[in-house]
Amino acid sequence: MKRALELALRGPAAGVNPQVGAVILNDSGEIVAEGWHLGSGTDHAEVMALKNLSAKFETLPKGLTAVVTLEPCNHTGKTGPCAQALIAAGISRVVYASSDPGDASSNGAQTLRDAGVEVISSVLETEADFQSRVWLTANRRRSPFVTLKWASSLDGRNAASDGSSKWISGEESRAHTHLQRSQCDAIAVGTATVLADDPELLARKSPNEYYSNQPLRVVIGNSDIPASARVLQGGDSVQLRTRDLQAALSELWARGVKHLLVEGGPNLASAFEEAGLVDEYQIYLAPVLLGGPRTSLTDIGVENISQGHRLEILETAQLGTDLFIRARRK
Amino acid sequence: MKRALELALRGPAAGVNPQVGAVILNDSGEIVAEGWHLGSGTDHAEVMALKNLSAKFETLPKGLTAVVTLEPCNHTGKTGPCAQALIAAGISRVVYASSDPGDASSNGAQTLRDAGVEVISSVLETEADFQSRVWLTANRRRSPFVTLKWASSLDGRNAASDGSSKWISGEESRAHTHLQRSQCDAIAVGTATVLADDPELLARKSPNEYYSNQPLRVVIGNSDIPASARVLQGGDSVQLRTRDLQAALSELWARGVKHLLVEGGPNLASAFEEAGLVDEYQIYLAPVLLGGPRTSLTDIGVENISQGHRLEILETAQLGTDLFIRARRK
Repeated sequence: MKRALELALRGPAAGVNPQVGAVILNDSGEIVAEGWHLGSGTDHAEVMALKNLSAKFETLPKGLTAVVTLEPCNHTGKTGPCAQALIAAGISRVVYASSDPGDASSNGAQTLRDAGVEVISSVLETEADFQSRVWLTANRRRSPFVTLKWASSLDGRNAASDGSSKWISGEESRAHTHLQRSQCDAIAVGTATVLADDPELLARKSPNEYYSNQPLRVVIGNSDIPASARVLQGGDSVQLRTRDLQAALSELWARGVKHLLVEGGPNLASAFEEAGLVDEYQIYLAPVLLGGPRTSLTDIGVENISQGHRLEILETAQLGTDLFIRARRK
Repeated sequence: MKRALELALRGPAAGVNPQVGAVILNDSGEIVAEGWHLGSGTDHAEVMALKNLSAKFETLPKGLTAVVTLEPCNHTGKTGPCAQALIAAGISRVVYASSDPGDASSNGAQTLRDAGVEVISSVLETEADFQSRVWLTANRRRSPFVTLKWASSLDGRNAASDGSSKWISGEESRAHTHLQRSQCDAIAVGTATVLADDPELLARKSPNEYYSNQPLRVVIGNSDIPASARVLQGGDSVQLRTRDLQAALSELWARGVKHLLVEGGPNLASAFEEAGLVDEYQIYLAPVLLGGPRTSLTDIGVENISQGHRLEILETAQLGTDLFIRARRK
């Protein structure tokens, strides 16, 4: 299963489909084929593994075990159902980690069992659920997974008093942000940020090179923004004229957004935080002190220390001289 | 020298005297005696090492080398000059790391050379200077080394909107703070903090046990504080009725303070920061979000991002679930 989880990461992080990995073992427990899912419309991991298996053996050996990170799907979408493919290939045993949260695609395990295939579920489920938390959370809840990102000074400011903020964080942090952008489906900013900073919000590999996957750029808020705003040029973007964030998320879900990256500014970030809509935080802390009024978060509805939003740190890393913190609500 | 630097740490971190370690090597380079300084009025490291040497040998071997973390002193204070003691013991060679910054105590190296002792200076000087940075900086500058400490949420708040702050940081961080207090000579807070929080500011090992070394508690500011304030009870404390921080530091230097720990609140911390008087930062970041108006630093005179006070991170550590950051100005 560990190998299958590694293989899963070869697939794209963004998009409507999950990252899935599969390995096929012979009756001695040796890996005889591997597969992974490369995104919507392409073979599912199990099918890639079965194809690799067929290429290797003229007649398939008996007693094969398929180890998959996600419960094999049960429905015909752009590709056929994996449960049927595994049955057709004569696989004896299927081991999987996470349960499929889909309405149409779930119950693959039952289909396999009904066909006489031995099924073992929940192997390394915690690890697999964590690795696929964005896709699983979004699909189980039927609402985008929300990552809130900010870069601040060590004293919690996102800009100096005069509003200047280029650059608080270092090159490595900014490159990391661009990579994160390329791995989500949409980026949200408030109208105030568009009016003040006029950001482009594209995902760049370097100053002159863009990532092939560009997220939908979403401006949330009722204020008018000029048609010349950079966020409206050169790619998909939309303004959601609402202050109801739940409605905004529903609208984005309907547009196929599984993963929304909220990039600010402070008012939008604080509104998401106050509404309890943040699934994960990505905080870049730069080794600088700024003081002054421009905090990364404004008010989040906390009056008393006991109401503070306690976080669980998932990861800390050094990015150049910055400190990167990934966290979630406790 | 590495061993001597280890031995130095056995001495007390606070107080007027430095942490110094010494080892004596025979002509084969083997350690034959060790010493360290236990604080004002006790033997200097070299003298302890020489005494340990005498206890071991009836007649001292020839060709001995003394390795000391600090240039041997040249003056008679509460104890005699180490340079003379080393000469008297017939030591052939003295190796040291940091230069002695004292007016009266320096030039030990010259005294040794004049007596025909071979002297090698600056061995592991960077490491030794860093280890003794508090004492060396204070003595070279003739003004206390200033450590600014704050505990904040990840979004830079030191309290919730209603002023409640117990406890932002966890038990391990608070224990760390108390240890730090016991290792400095004075703690400073502003009058606003005394009036709002009425802190005791003693260094506690546990709820019922105090450290043997208690720093002078200093209240800085012109506002009156009540005679019943806890900071005025049970130990040494003083109010400096001034807003001139340089004058406050001179006053504290005159009182023998080498190391001042500024504990806040935000106005005093920001005043020290704006005046460029901070030598080192100790920041405890708790995994919580608070929002609201109560930032750990207020205004530090930074208008534009280019004027931001850039820091060099010296250390990051996990303290329970908190993040501890030690830094200095770049």
